[in-house]
Amino acid sequence: MNTCEKILTTAAFLFQKNGYHATGLNEIIKESATPKGSLYYHFPNGKEELAAATIKLMGDTIQHHIEEELAKNSDPVQAIQEFILDIARKFNEKDPENCFSISLLALETVPISDSLRKTCIEVYDLWTDIYYQKLVSSGFSSERATELSLILQLMIEGAITISLIRNDTTMLIATAGKIPILLKDK
Amino acid sequence: MNTCEKILTTAAFLFQKNGYHATGLNEIIKESATPKGSLYYHFPNGKEELAAATIKLMGDTIQHHIEEELAKNSDPVQAIQEFILDIARKFNEKDPENCFSISLLALETVPISDSLRKTCIEVYDLWTDIYYQKLVSSGFSSERATELSLILQLMIEGAITISLIRNDTTMLIATAGKIPILLKDK
Repeated sequence: MNTCEKILTTAAFLFQKNGYHATGLNEIIKESATPKGSLYYHFPNGKEELAAATIKLMGDTIQHHIEEELAKNSDPVQAIQEFILDIARKFNEKDPENCFSISLLALETVPISDSLRKTCIEVYDLWTDIYYQKLVSSGFSSERATELSLILQLMIEGAITISLIRNDTTMLIATAGKIPILLKDK
Repeated sequence: MNTCEKILTTAAFLFQKNGYHATGLNEIIKESATPKGSLYYHFPNGKEELAAATIKLMGDTIQHHIEEELAKNSDPVQAIQEFILDIARKFNEKDPENCFSISLLALETVPISDSLRKTCIEVYDLWTDIYYQKLVSSGFSSERATELSLILQLMIEGAITISLIRNDTTMLIATAGKIPILLKDK
């Protein structure tokens, strides 16, 4: 992992866990064990620029993870259920790299940075599109897939958020249980 | 409104909008137009004590609001749909007092205060119980009502959160549209 990747990976973990305001650049430098100058070299415009790069990295990483998980099963109901139950398993194994949520960052950006807010929306759209593609390739109409992919994104991000707050996986299990009825009609 | 109520109402608005970290006590004093000593008199233990009181106030206020809205219609599907569409209308009217979400506060509290985190969970449970009572009084089994009320709470809080991030009501409308299928079997 090069210096820039170390900074971004550490920033992604800290921003996701503690949020934008509670994470300082010095903490990122310390936790990533990189020279102070590196952060300012790679992100000369500071915290907002680093946060934007971090959100994009989290977006891409999670995009590929969702794509891989959904490809494991041709049936969309089983594929999406297994994906959600896998998040629950990783949550219970205290594997924080696989329980990422950008909700905290996204909510914090609303009053402070329209640019960061839009980056978060782009990431949400990226993830939503994976559910859309899975549904369309399984025979759902474009209209139904558009509507359902938004609901799936809402429920999965919401279930991860509430799992983090409650420190248990009740909502992930409950959400997985609702996938068959939500996806009943194509 | 007395001084304590003025402080709490202002704190509720600022904590909800900007979050725990980004809201300073001096800002609350200034925005509430109350004497500096009042805040420290009513909340001698400072920001965390004020935040706990604020979360409880938001919990109670929204609890009564949900109860009133759901009582307007005996059919649970129509009652819950109308409640969600009413949030969407108020969102479009830029009536922020009726579009409250405690997700930002709740997520911020996870790494910093177990006590505040638990206060947020109590509030989520309070709201979830209203959906539970509505479903049980409409003939749903206790088991189904327990599971569905969690999903309803997740979807409604999630839809408000995403509406705040996107600055549009797409997710509230989509969520309202999913209520009939979610509540199909009692």
